[in-house]
Amino acid sequence: MTIGEGGSLVQQAVQAVRDHIRDNDLKVGDTLPGEGHFAELMGVSRAVMREAFGALAALKLIDVANGRRARVGAIDGSVMAASLDHAVATSQVSMTEIWDVRRTVEVRTAMLAAEHRTDQEAAQILALAEAMATAGDDMALVTASDVAFHDAIARASHNALFVQIIGSFAPMMHVAVPAAWKTRTTDEEKAETIVRHRALAKAIADRDPEAARISMTSHFDRAIDALLRQES
Amino acid sequence: MTIGEGGSLVQQAVQAVRDHIRDNDLKVGDTLPGEGHFAELMGVSRAVMREAFGALAALKLIDVANGRRARVGAIDGSVMAASLDHAVATSQVSMTEIWDVRRTVEVRTAMLAAEHRTDQEAAQILALAEAMATAGDDMALVTASDVAFHDAIARASHNALFVQIIGSFAPMMHVAVPAAWKTRTTDEEKAETIVRHRALAKAIADRDPEAARISMTSHFDRAIDALLRQES
Repeated sequence: MTIGEGGSLVQQAVQAVRDHIRDNDLKVGDTLPGEGHFAELMGVSRAVMREAFGALAALKLIDVANGRRARVGAIDGSVMAASLDHAVATSQVSMTEIWDVRRTVEVRTAMLAAEHRTDQEAAQILALAEAMATAGDDMALVTASDVAFHDAIARASHNALFVQIIGSFAPMMHVAVPAAWKTRTTDEEKAETIVRHRALAKAIADRDPEAARISMTSHFDRAIDALLRQES
Repeated sequence: MTIGEGGSLVQQAVQAVRDHIRDNDLKVGDTLPGEGHFAELMGVSRAVMREAFGALAALKLIDVANGRRARVGAIDGSVMAASLDHAVATSQVSMTEIWDVRRTVEVRTAMLAAEHRTDQEAAQILALAEAMATAGDDMALVTASDVAFHDAIARASHNALFVQIIGSFAPMMHVAVPAAWKTRTTDEEKAETIVRHRALAKAIADRDPEAARISMTSHFDRAIDALLRQES
């Protein structure tokens, strides 16, 4: 059977599994009945059910490890990351559009983090800003610290959906951060970047949402400026 | 072959198709070589390639219509919508968290729409606000107009990623809008909702981003208030 044939049967099979999860109030990690159970229940072939499980696994709605029973999946920024990567590769979305979305979302998480961060989260965010400051020209370390810094702020917002959205930007940051760093040609420009990260970390530690908003906004204004310099 | 077995082979096969799209600078609707081509190229079985095509189709990275050659897929809010629906059904994300993300994103699209809307877009947004006003207690029409209103504002922002994100919220709006409407018990409260939609449409038509920001913020403050009333 090819994917096209019986597409709507596969869609119904996908929906049956999603209904099973919802109706039984299952949580992440709970086991699901096998393909055979659903195939019999719906009166469809094992091949249809196998395709449905494949689609559910691709969307991370179920987790199918080697030879194990399928389990309810944890949401995962990688699904949105794959969409974003594809959209950029095929010119459906520009980097400038993505940067506007990132700024919008991350200004909000910075404010929420300033309101909701625990002491441990504040300490981690400050430590990651310092890690960037001491990374020098080790681009791998600068990038890893920068990605971890934005992720830590998202987590300190205590909003799981913001964490997922910001996580979905991480793969492209591994390309964008080194590129942006290259446009910062003088030591003075690099020092400025570090100062801005420190100021943002301090605003969050100080529980000052307005200072966090201003810091994150100015951080992105500079980053977008650097991005446009690259593209021109 | 089950989904679990050879998972990493399938992942490599998925990546090979994604690389083909990127390296050949393909655009939405362009045709792809068949499964057989990739299977031969990679030295993997047709079964592995079929699973990879299934995963790519589930993620909407390729579009496989009945019996046709696979084509490059258009990004589609339905992938993120499925993630959101699953995350809510399994208590990974709360409605309150989603509403904060929606407010954050839609306040920005309202401002961008005020800056970038064409005359035709402004006229459409105003018309949808009027459609809501004249829908009375026809909940299907109120809901359809409300979803179309937010979608039209997203499109007028001229940022394709915001359009996708806001589109991914549409399925849950079909549940949330009637529920919120029910909490508006008096005619006065319903009239207020309509007044706020009109004010937002007018701010966008007037090219006034600050008024659009204030209108959308107050719209969401009221909507979140109604949501919390439902949940309590």
